[in-house]
Amino acid sequence: MVQALIFDVFGTCVDWRSSVAREVAADLPRVDALAFADAWRGEYQPAMERIRAADRGYVPLDVLHLENLHRVADRIGVIAPDSLNAAWEKLDPWPDVVEGLKHLKQSRIIAPCSNGSIALMTRLAKYGRLPWDCILGADIARDYKPKPEVYLAACSALDLPPGQVMMVAAHNDDLMAARDAGLRTGFVARPTEYGPEQQADLQPEADWDIVASDFVALAAEVNGR
Amino acid sequence: MVQALIFDVFGTCVDWRSSVAREVAADLPRVDALAFADAWRGEYQPAMERIRAADRGYVPLDVLHLENLHRVADRIGVIAPDSLNAAWEKLDPWPDVVEGLKHLKQSRIIAPCSNGSIALMTRLAKYGRLPWDCILGADIARDYKPKPEVYLAACSALDLPPGQVMMVAAHNDDLMAARDAGLRTGFVARPTEYGPEQQADLQPEADWDIVASDFVALAAEVNGR
Repeated sequence: MVQALIFDVFGTCVDWRSSVAREVAADLPRVDALAFADAWRGEYQPAMERIRAADRGYVPLDVLHLENLHRVADRIGVIAPDSLNAAWEKLDPWPDVVEGLKHLKQSRIIAPCSNGSIALMTRLAKYGRLPWDCILGADIARDYKPKPEVYLAACSALDLPPGQVMMVAAHNDDLMAARDAGLRTGFVARPTEYGPEQQADLQPEADWDIVASDFVALAAEVNGR
Repeated sequence: MVQALIFDVFGTCVDWRSSVAREVAADLPRVDALAFADAWRGEYQPAMERIRAADRGYVPLDVLHLENLHRVADRIGVIAPDSLNAAWEKLDPWPDVVEGLKHLKQSRIIAPCSNGSIALMTRLAKYGRLPWDCILGADIARDYKPKPEVYLAACSALDLPPGQVMMVAAHNDDLMAARDAGLRTGFVARPTEYGPEQQADLQPEADWDIVASDFVALAAEVNGR
């Protein structure tokens, strides 16, 4: 019996790409805003990888986002204001997310298990009205997904065994890591997360416990069990 | 400008005494339920003190509650079921709390900064419909109030300086520690937390930044600033 569902956020719950591009366009009107958003996000995995590899101590994602903002801006020869970093706190949820989460919250604990910090996830939830019961993820574990510690710290914080917690993501690699840590898995495809040319994660690549078309369908499936 | 309010929970937000007594009465019909609740709560500070003093590594409050349950039951010669420990997840909010928190949530971040764990605070919020934005407190700091680390870890998790965070409590010593750590302070008296004979914390004992009669009045004061 799944007692709690924990969620990837960037891409799975919210459309980071067009939202960040909107904020970039407002602050840096001369740059290609979507290309800037993609480049900014492109620095995400390498920045976390140093921390996963213990080449650097844990710092919250907000710090990495700010460093990456200036790295990308420098590369194309523009000066970005630090305040643009708050773009990551203003990401629009996909249209099904708030309704689906409200349905799930009636019967289960729901929480983000994101690489975003508590500060970032809290502000993002207020912006998008995401009705989380609590905020889990990287800050709790002081490490980054897909390291197993992050999924297990979320289960531990809820005082639940991993088999009673379902990780929900639009990314097959996130679910693979969660399954390896003993969690249940739910896949919801977000085929335009990376824009119209997206190649990866268009389909489930393993027999995840639930595959749903969106969060409303996911809630119906979970609540019907 | 206060950006976030963080709250003591046991006594300040919820009536732990009559709620725990109700659960005790259901499981242990032959004992004096209010006296049992008082004795159980009486073990709370000494159990945390060992961890504050580093005589014992951090364990969540749920573990201390369970140990204390059996200590109190042993003392009066009864056997208590482990499941009675969940009494602490079923504490009724004082009547003004949910409405006041909803008003505050419209303009500020609201979170518990309790000695209760994330697991406990999450279940308690679902039981009492407390609309927290996130869960802070002892589990984040891996230490117990009134150590300054707990208040400062809450501010750090929100990426806010202590001067932009207000601690709200019905206990003068909690507010004193929060003020010493640099936070703003709000006092709401709960004169029957310990029953009709309560002697302590009937009045504010320092010039707290806000003194309010209940959470609805607190919200009006904060939102009016």
